[in-house]
Amino acid sequence: MSTTLYRKAHFNAAHRLYHPEWSDEKNAAVFGKCSNPNYHGHNYELEVGITGPIDPVTGMVMDVAILKSLIKEEVEDPFDHKNLNLEVSEFKTLIPTVENIAKVIWEKLRARIDTNYGIIVKLYETPRNFVVHQG
Amino acid sequence: MSTTLYRKAHFNAAHRLYHPEWSDEKNAAVFGKCSNPNYHGHNYELEVGITGPIDPVTGMVMDVAILKSLIKEEVEDPFDHKNLNLEVSEFKTLIPTVENIAKVIWEKLRARIDTNYGIIVKLYETPRNFVVHQG
Amino acid sequence: MSTTLYRKAHFNAAHRLYHPEWSDEKNAAVFGKCSNPNYHGHNYELEVGITGPIDPVTGMVMDVAILKSLIKEEVEDPFDHKNLNLEVSEFKTLIPTVENIAKVIWEKLRARIDTNYGIIVKLYETPRNFVVHQG
Amino acid sequence: MSTTLYRKAHFNAAHRLYHPEWSDEKNAAVFGKCSNPNYHGHNYELEVGITGPIDPVTGMVMDVAILKSLIKEEVEDPFDHKNLNLEVSEFKTLIPTVENIAKVIWEKLRARIDTNYGIIVKLYETPRNFVVHQG
Amino acid sequence: MSTTLYRKAHFNAAHRLYHPEWSDEKNAAVFGKCSNPNYHGHNYELEVGITGPIDPVTGMVMDVAILKSLIKEEVEDPFDHKNLNLEVSEFKTLIPTVENIAKVIWEKLRARIDTNYGIIVKLYETPRNFVVHQG
Amino acid sequence: MSTTLYRKAHFNAAHRLYHPEWSDEKNAAVFGKCSNPNYHGHNYELEVGITGPIDPVTGMVMDVAILKSLIKEEVEDPFDHKNLNLEVSEFKTLIPTVENIAKVIWEKLRARIDTNYGIIVKLYETPRNFVVHQG
Repeated sequence: MSTTLYRKAHFNAAHRLYHPEWSDEKNAAVFGKCSNPNYHGHNYELEVGITGPIDPVTGMVMDVAILKSLIKEEVEDPFDHKNLNLEVSEFKTLIPTVENIAKVIWEKLRARIDTNYGIIVKLYETPRNFVVHQG
Repeated sequence: MSTTLYRKAHFNAAHRLYHPEWSDEKNAAVFGKCSNPNYHGHNYELEVGITGPIDPVTGMVMDVAILKSLIKEEVEDPFDHKNLNLEVSEFKTLIPTVENIAKVIWEKLRARIDTNYGIIVKLYETPRNFVVHQG
Repeated sequence: MSTTLYRKAHFNAAHRLYHPEWSDEKNAAVFGKCSNPNYHGHNYELEVGITGPIDPVTGMVMDVAILKSLIKEEVEDPFDHKNLNLEVSEFKTLIPTVENIAKVIWEKLRARIDTNYGIIVKLYETPRNFVVHQG
Repeated sequence: MSTTLYRKAHFNAAHRLYHPEWSDEKNAAVFGKCSNPNYHGHNYELEVGITGPIDPVTGMVMDVAILKSLIKEEVEDPFDHKNLNLEVSEFKTLIPTVENIAKVIWEKLRARIDTNYGIIVKLYETPRNFVVHQG
Repeated sequence: MSTTLYRKAHFNAAHRLYHPEWSDEKNAAVFGKCSNPNYHGHNYELEVGITGPIDPVTGMVMDVAILKSLIKEEVEDPFDHKNLNLEVSEFKTLIPTVENIAKVIWEKLRARIDTNYGIIVKLYETPRNFVVHQG
Repeated sequence: MSTTLYRKAHFNAAHRLYHPEWSDEKNAAVFGKCSNPNYHGHNYELEVGITGPIDPVTGMVMDVAILKSLIKEEVEDPFDHKNLNLEVSEFKTLIPTVENIAKVIWEKLRARIDTNYGIIVKLYETPRNFVVHQG
């Protein structure tokens, strides 16, 4: 048996996919129009799931208000209305693909949440492309 | 390999989060505005998944019409347009958090469905808060 | 030509449909299970539209941050996690149907927004029932 | 840890549920109105998930443009605006239930994608009925 | 000022776009793959809006239970799980485009609802193509 | 009576809200975090509606394939994966607010569609903020 509590959140950001050791041609070949040097952007829609036992006293896996605050501190405040490549430290050396953004969010939350709890990060880059990163 | 057939359903209900052995102050501290003594309410959106083999004759995991009927009998009829705290027997001694409501739904369906089949209950309390309970 | 800027918001509340001068039987006959004396509830999803000229300097019909604040003050703060019948003054003498709730929201916003602007209120009581009130 | 990249797609098709060795009465008893000899149809909404490691150079599980092309070749081109029973070879001997359609899609993609990657197929027959097939 | 009460409904059906006086070539040229002689199909999602005064006694534009019944009788019962071309009388001489289906639904409801009320029909053929027919 | 045919489309882009004659302080005061000099971005979801008579021969207001092509040429090709401020000529002298983007799209389509048809542009900047521009 498992129970996972989910909370949705969102942030809007600019990014580009770009490998600094590659030529512009190779970046364009691998990343297509996502490599536009002038950036493009997305409304990232995020679902964070926390897996753990239901507390028999409160009936909660986790207080959703605490989860909401953690997401605000670790994701919304640093990522919202930002240029991910230029303004978010994790992406100075990591390409901000939706896979890597989901992984970074997972790792930031992992550092804040008791390891008895599992964490699932579902991140929509568009309504048509998304990633689930879990562990 | 696994195959899970899902059916959506929904019910609207009032509830409050309240621990009867706690003071009003402690209830407010733990449950915030969800502890309002006059109740508030939600449109609960439910997804029930049944995991099992595809019947080679019918091509179905389960007849979705039967699943729809089970959900109606076990969830919609007893929960819809009800006050969960006052009118649903399971919540007379159990706080109707979204985690506990999902667990109760799972247990009610578990008692009706062959144990060769796995059951997944996904319950949205709001479009932003939801739980997955499975086993 | 017209331009309308919309902002979404939401609140969760309990209510019942009940006419105080009618017998319980007549209330049940007219309002069905929505008349349950123990209340039921909904996630109300709200869209507010403001119709007016695009300011040639800012490119905005209205600053969406101001609209968001107005909705918070006039709708979310007084309605969210409340029992509409018992705790919201407008519904002490007015049945809180989705039509009347939309009308009350429209009137509260009308009192705060320059009459040069049109106001549209779209209010979902459930994902399947909703009202548009405009003028 | 696992990472799954998802891509959405869709196709519209006619079908009927019908077992050729059964009488019309038995087909109607088992499949109900889905057995209508004149067919009915659906907008099938599809999510394909690919589970595998994030490539440390590109930051991708798989190039989503390649995944999009595979789905187009294996699913959209042969299924879209078709009668599944009459025009799609896999369903000449297999009843096109949503379970079997999801399984066929999974098998077609499995034949095209490196077996180091897991494949998840989520197929909506309607917004209320859907299947997840994975392995 | 105006108030419109909406109710959602849905039906699944097969159809083809085909002009009987045209050659197959001309049908294919005008209607493309929608002209497939073996039919294709859709999940039609329907919103019906009724515009009128809010009854000062009940707080309703119209009893949503009555509106739901009318939609069931006039639309869901005759259209759901049907082949529109072969089994729905209105489309024996009218091409079942989404525009014409919306118009037929509007006319069927118009014949059942007091002409003091306006009627709006919004019909989704797919999540990406839809029509609003009103008067 | 009126009939409007709608088609959905989408594009992803970076932008910032910035008035070139204002100081950075004034831009920040008016536009808040939307004025970030490094840009941010959105998934713009677009609905274009065309109002006109239903052609009695084809049953269509307009061939949706033509409408889809017009949107691709006038909106998706020039706007998708672009920096609106730097790469889209219309926004070199016009602030790319969602109101102005909707107005520009309307004007570009107006120049391509017979003036006997009305045009409605609904543009979502986020799932929570959107504009309807019509005439």
